[in-house]
Amino acid sequence: MNIIDIINQKRLKQELSKEQIEYVVKEYTNGTIKDYQMSALLMAICLNGMNDEEVFALTNAMYCSGETLDLTSIDGIKVDKHSTGGVGDKTTLILAPLVASLGVNVAKMSGRGLGHTGGTIDKLESIPGFSTIMSLEDFTQQVNQIHLALVGQMGNLVPADKKIYALRDVTGTVESIPLIASSIMSKKLASSAECMVIDLKVGEGALIKTKEDARSLAHFMIKIGNQYNRKVVCALTNMQEPLGTHIGNALEVQESIEFLKGNCQKDLYELVLTLGSIMVHMALSISEEEARKKLEENIHNQKGYEKWKEFISMQGGDLEQLTLAPKVFSVKSTKTGYIQKIHTMKLGEIIRAIGAGRYQKEDSIDYGVGMILTKKVGDFVMENEEILKIYLNQKDMTIGSILECFEIGTHYVEPEPLIYEIIR
Amino acid sequence: MNIIDIINQKRLKQELSKEQIEYVVKEYTNGTIKDYQMSALLMAICLNGMNDEEVFALTNAMYCSGETLDLTSIDGIKVDKHSTGGVGDKTTLILAPLVASLGVNVAKMSGRGLGHTGGTIDKLESIPGFSTIMSLEDFTQQVNQIHLALVGQMGNLVPADKKIYALRDVTGTVESIPLIASSIMSKKLASSAECMVIDLKVGEGALIKTKEDARSLAHFMIKIGNQYNRKVVCALTNMQEPLGTHIGNALEVQESIEFLKGNCQKDLYELVLTLGSIMVHMALSISEEEARKKLEENIHNQKGYEKWKEFISMQGGDLEQLTLAPKVFSVKSTKTGYIQKIHTMKLGEIIRAIGAGRYQKEDSIDYGVGMILTKKVGDFVMENEEILKIYLNQKDMTIGSILECFEIGTHYVEPEPLIYEIIR
Repeated sequence: MNIIDIINQKRLKQELSKEQIEYVVKEYTNGTIKDYQMSALLMAICLNGMNDEEVFALTNAMYCSGETLDLTSIDGIKVDKHSTGGVGDKTTLILAPLVASLGVNVAKMSGRGLGHTGGTIDKLESIPGFSTIMSLEDFTQQVNQIHLALVGQMGNLVPADKKIYALRDVTGTVESIPLIASSIMSKKLASSAECMVIDLKVGEGALIKTKEDARSLAHFMIKIGNQYNRKVVCALTNMQEPLGTHIGNALEVQESIEFLKGNCQKDLYELVLTLGSIMVHMALSISEEEARKKLEENIHNQKGYEKWKEFISMQGGDLEQLTLAPKVFSVKSTKTGYIQKIHTMKLGEIIRAIGAGRYQKEDSIDYGVGMILTKKVGDFVMENEEILKIYLNQKDMTIGSILECFEIGTHYVEPEPLIYEIIR
Repeated sequence: MNIIDIINQKRLKQELSKEQIEYVVKEYTNGTIKDYQMSALLMAICLNGMNDEEVFALTNAMYCSGETLDLTSIDGIKVDKHSTGGVGDKTTLILAPLVASLGVNVAKMSGRGLGHTGGTIDKLESIPGFSTIMSLEDFTQQVNQIHLALVGQMGNLVPADKKIYALRDVTGTVESIPLIASSIMSKKLASSAECMVIDLKVGEGALIKTKEDARSLAHFMIKIGNQYNRKVVCALTNMQEPLGTHIGNALEVQESIEFLKGNCQKDLYELVLTLGSIMVHMALSISEEEARKKLEENIHNQKGYEKWKEFISMQGGDLEQLTLAPKVFSVKSTKTGYIQKIHTMKLGEIIRAIGAGRYQKEDSIDYGVGMILTKKVGDFVMENEEILKIYLNQKDMTIGSILECFEIGTHYVEPEPLIYEIIR
């Protein structure tokens, strides 16, 4: 087999065979196929697509490129949750302890992020003392004990995806449904959960811009899951404005705590209960309505919050020490009217620029910085009234560029629904 | 400017600006933009195309990336000839001395080849003693003296194209009309001829597979030429079977000599006279009919052959020493019937495999090896009658794989016309 023939084939919109795809993944991972050849192939895939069989073959080849997490010593079904990422998305921080408080096993590996804020692991590491490194033995034991453990990478899982993902990131080949589907699913397969809920963020501020693309991605992932006897449910959700009110690492931890104490921001509440009831339904075989009721109970009786505290202290974190950035500025509207739109991507870029996120893998994160939105889409704001609070350590901010992220007009705009559809 | 944004833009079928294209060419040539990013962009260009403005910008940026040959000390108009390459294409070896014998200046730089046989330079180097290295001063002086000089690379012309072409070669991004047009034209502009004839080979055995693509390429090149006041004429010609009868480096020199002595194979004769009359017409401002007549004269009175000998000896070559490989085998048909098709690409691969061409830039060429076709498309052949002679030095050949290149059937097939159309 020859990589140039394979690239030419995909350039000419011809299907690649299972053997060709296995060859590409193997020889790229071991370095025989060069970065410049792989990126040409990735671009051809971005533009000419892949059919079901090709996506299955690619996912399987990446899944088989490394180790698989052996979680057989955990008693009972494990449920995973994945989000394609969005500004202010702290859902995992809330969902994981909440469903665990009902006895659902959450044995989760999470990533660091190259996004506007850090990934779940970075957010948790904003809690002083919290450790995201654990042996497999301690990990499975903790899940058996408290139904919840959350760690960073463990073992040499899907090395092919790591290498391919890093290349896509710098070659403009991130936005491809087949490549996204196989990247997410190869990792999920290797991390061994039987059931998973995938939150597909859709909109201007997200990787996936249209509902059509999101549906196509969902169908790919569900079909891949079926091949391996894994139950996959996808929620298509709105990323037109930030999720909840807090954005930043420690700030998102703080909003999660408030939520679990019962002070829930409306859109975040809806998302947590929708995804949570699917997870509980899958793990405990009760109806989603019943699951939702139980989750609501465990918010009100604070059992979710108790589980959160238990989990954080079990992994060494000291919530008392959670620190926000010391300089807090109130950003005020220069207009009176309804907030009609928030340019989420642009706002996210500002948040990254003040230190909450990374530009390069090696960058360190400023955990305490971020924003709290006082107003969201549909809210009325008076001239000179606060729109948001910004938390800074060092860097100065141009307030103007923040205000540019908010479109304010004279007529009321109904916020779009948060949950577009559930695909099973 | 940012290469990832530029790649994404082209992936999304958006036009690139002149400034973006200049940035890409400059930063890729100096190494800031990486091979893996450039190859992703090249693939996006292959699949999403480029409009006229983009092709002009790309050609100009490559043209400006290095030196320009200063040929102002040559008296009179210089005419260039380029071929996109095909099996058995020795046209330049014949055309250059033939038109020079009419006083037309041919100051030509030619390349080595990564093809089935070597490039024009390799073919000339099969003549012992022939030198393709010359100072600019000697080069211009020789053209003034005998109207003809032919050298390899001179000066640091279009380094951007050199680097981009090498990358395209290993990333399946060769077959793109805008990339081919800008690659050829940036080199032609830098080598300073006022007029040029470009022989666009079309067919299974060529880089360009369809007439439609060839027309599009021709239009791009003519428009680019116009921008710089260069006259470009493109001939779309048939590459469905090898050109002439001899394939291989010394063998093609031999066929060229035979041609100039008046023993002309029919299809080659037609091509040489068509391209030649356009060249002479452009350089001497006489009609093409008249030009054709003069060329025919100079074949019959052997003035073309005299010019060839003068040129070869001026550059140090000793034609007496031209050597063919010692082992000659006759390949005989196993069937009786008409030759209906020759799989030219496959035959070319065999010729490369016996040593006439290169796989890697560093490979050396076995000048003496090759083939002489006894039969061509439309010819009748008896079982056990010779189809071709093969010249070998060392390697053994499986005759079977050669015979597979010939389709022989019971009914006569008219060979396709050699010249499809001329585009000005």
